[in-house]
Amino acid sequence: MQNEHAAETTGPNRDEPPGPRFDVVAVGNALVDVLARATDSELDQLGLAKGTMALVDRDRAEAIYATMGETTEASGGSAANTVAGIASLGGRAAFVGRVADDPLGMAFTHDIRAVGVAFDPAPALPGTGESGTGHCLVLVTEDAERTMATHLGVSAELGPADLQRDHLSSAQVVYLEGYLWEQPVAKSGMREAMEIAHAADASVALTLSDPFCVRAHREEFLEIVHGELELLFANEDEIKLLFGVDGFDAAVEEVGETGVLAVLTRGAQGSVVVDASGPIAVPAAPVGRVVDTTGAGDLFAAGFLYGITNGLDPTSSARLGGVCAAEIISHVGARPESDLRALAVAAGLFD
Amino acid sequence: MQNEHAAETTGPNRDEPPGPRFDVVAVGNALVDVLARATDSELDQLGLAKGTMALVDRDRAEAIYATMGETTEASGGSAANTVAGIASLGGRAAFVGRVADDPLGMAFTHDIRAVGVAFDPAPALPGTGESGTGHCLVLVTEDAERTMATHLGVSAELGPADLQRDHLSSAQVVYLEGYLWEQPVAKSGMREAMEIAHAADASVALTLSDPFCVRAHREEFLEIVHGELELLFANEDEIKLLFGVDGFDAAVEEVGETGVLAVLTRGAQGSVVVDASGPIAVPAAPVGRVVDTTGAGDLFAAGFLYGITNGLDPTSSARLGGVCAAEIISHVGARPESDLRALAVAAGLFD
Repeated sequence: MQNEHAAETTGPNRDEPPGPRFDVVAVGNALVDVLARATDSELDQLGLAKGTMALVDRDRAEAIYATMGETTEASGGSAANTVAGIASLGGRAAFVGRVADDPLGMAFTHDIRAVGVAFDPAPALPGTGESGTGHCLVLVTEDAERTMATHLGVSAELGPADLQRDHLSSAQVVYLEGYLWEQPVAKSGMREAMEIAHAADASVALTLSDPFCVRAHREEFLEIVHGELELLFANEDEIKLLFGVDGFDAAVEEVGETGVLAVLTRGAQGSVVVDASGPIAVPAAPVGRVVDTTGAGDLFAAGFLYGITNGLDPTSSARLGGVCAAEIISHVGARPESDLRALAVAAGLFD
Repeated sequence: MQNEHAAETTGPNRDEPPGPRFDVVAVGNALVDVLARATDSELDQLGLAKGTMALVDRDRAEAIYATMGETTEASGGSAANTVAGIASLGGRAAFVGRVADDPLGMAFTHDIRAVGVAFDPAPALPGTGESGTGHCLVLVTEDAERTMATHLGVSAELGPADLQRDHLSSAQVVYLEGYLWEQPVAKSGMREAMEIAHAADASVALTLSDPFCVRAHREEFLEIVHGELELLFANEDEIKLLFGVDGFDAAVEEVGETGVLAVLTRGAQGSVVVDASGPIAVPAAPVGRVVDTTGAGDLFAAGFLYGITNGLDPTSSARLGGVCAAEIISHVGARPESDLRALAVAAGLFD
């Protein structure tokens, strides 16, 4: 029956290539960003540590919002930003996350679908409406650094029931947010997501997300790195914390011994790709004025993941990651404003 | 009693200068902008005329939104953008408009207050909740032009009951949006607003807003220009339509005979100030890449109004308008991202 149906299909799937339906399926928190400019002293007064993300409850989120200047709202979420970037590059991507039936949830759903990412969330459970769709208050300081306070809302309940099994088993890479380890239900969901991925011969990728995540879940992350993982994304601070070492070189050596393909980002210093043949440093892409670093890591991951699922070697994939990160830090917000595919072509990475 | 109370005041009003409490009080539609990039052919398919604003009902707004790419949301509204700009320059401003008790209304209220504009809307009437806060779908094309479809929501009912009489009678200038003449209830409210302003020795300023407004309400606008008005803002198309003439010079001559101070904007060609002494051309401020012209006219008006209410002559006020317009067209969105006061100082307009 299924074959019969497939033979009859005349829609956009007809010319689909053989193999997995998606380059990347990402699981993460579905968040709408609420962005405003702030000063260092305002961050101090709010007790927020610059450059990091803090989870806050609704009351605290409202108190922070009340102190914020004029805001703009745009869909965000770390892994969601990554798949939006992959779609902008021309990749096939899906997102797994949880929104409420409210205006923020509608905006998130509209935006991610509008860029061509498959997003088919499970219907909101009755009684969860009060929590609302999650949002992330992003305070951008003069130095372009972003400091975040996230109220997860219904995303706090993301769990096994939300996993889109047909999506997860139709991917080249299943990409997971380290942030999810903060949430007990999500954490057990991630175990299952990794199993589904491996059963379908998909690779599993993880981003360590934030130093606070690594501090809180170091043992579990190490276990995953040594067991389940094919691909690891981390920045310099995160990888040093993971292996409990002081120097970046020592961290590179440690991750090299795990056998995982690791991509380590170092801001303006570019990135280092570590695979079986050793570490390779890749310079950052040129960028004009840095306006807002929100989404830099997310879009680096987008470029890298699109690259390795579309025929580029790891070094070229890291270069593509750098091109995508450079675009995102040149403007306010964490979703691309320019055509990333055109930028990749201009950088000589694709014809 | 009032004097006693005033003598006792120890709050922030204590050092307030004598004279009107506000430089400018604006009346307009309270709207949240929903911005996305679009192509010319997408505008054609939607039947939208490039560069103009169309009023649409809720169904049509939803249909257009469904076709739009990834969006960002930011507070907007023409006159509201203007007072936000005045506040960014350091001016004292209030806004009169109507929002619903919903997330868009909360965001609009937060944002305009966050920049220091007084906004104390009348509580939403029971039964109007369904309409929701108004929003404006803004489609920005590659040439930085914006095309707008506005669903007014509760702002369609803006009327005499919403006028903040104590604000309107405490202004140097009461500034009205031509868009409001599209709304019968608002139109009668504007008559009253002009009377309150004049009774309190405030000047009345009007922007013609959009060619479609001028076509629809030409007779009334002419009557106001010849009767109630002290200050008129219009672009080239609007002023030609108002006087039914083909050439800009003929329009300048016509407006010169009315005795109204007129400020006519001409895009990259700058502006022309017309007062009793005749027309004076003021060049546009230099601008790098033009990204999105949304809000150019609104911010020009902000600079001009701040200037003339704070000691600048009309020509310098028009230069300040040009500085503010140049800032707004250099990025996406219609509210300033940079400190306009600092830009004005850099342009030599203030110490």
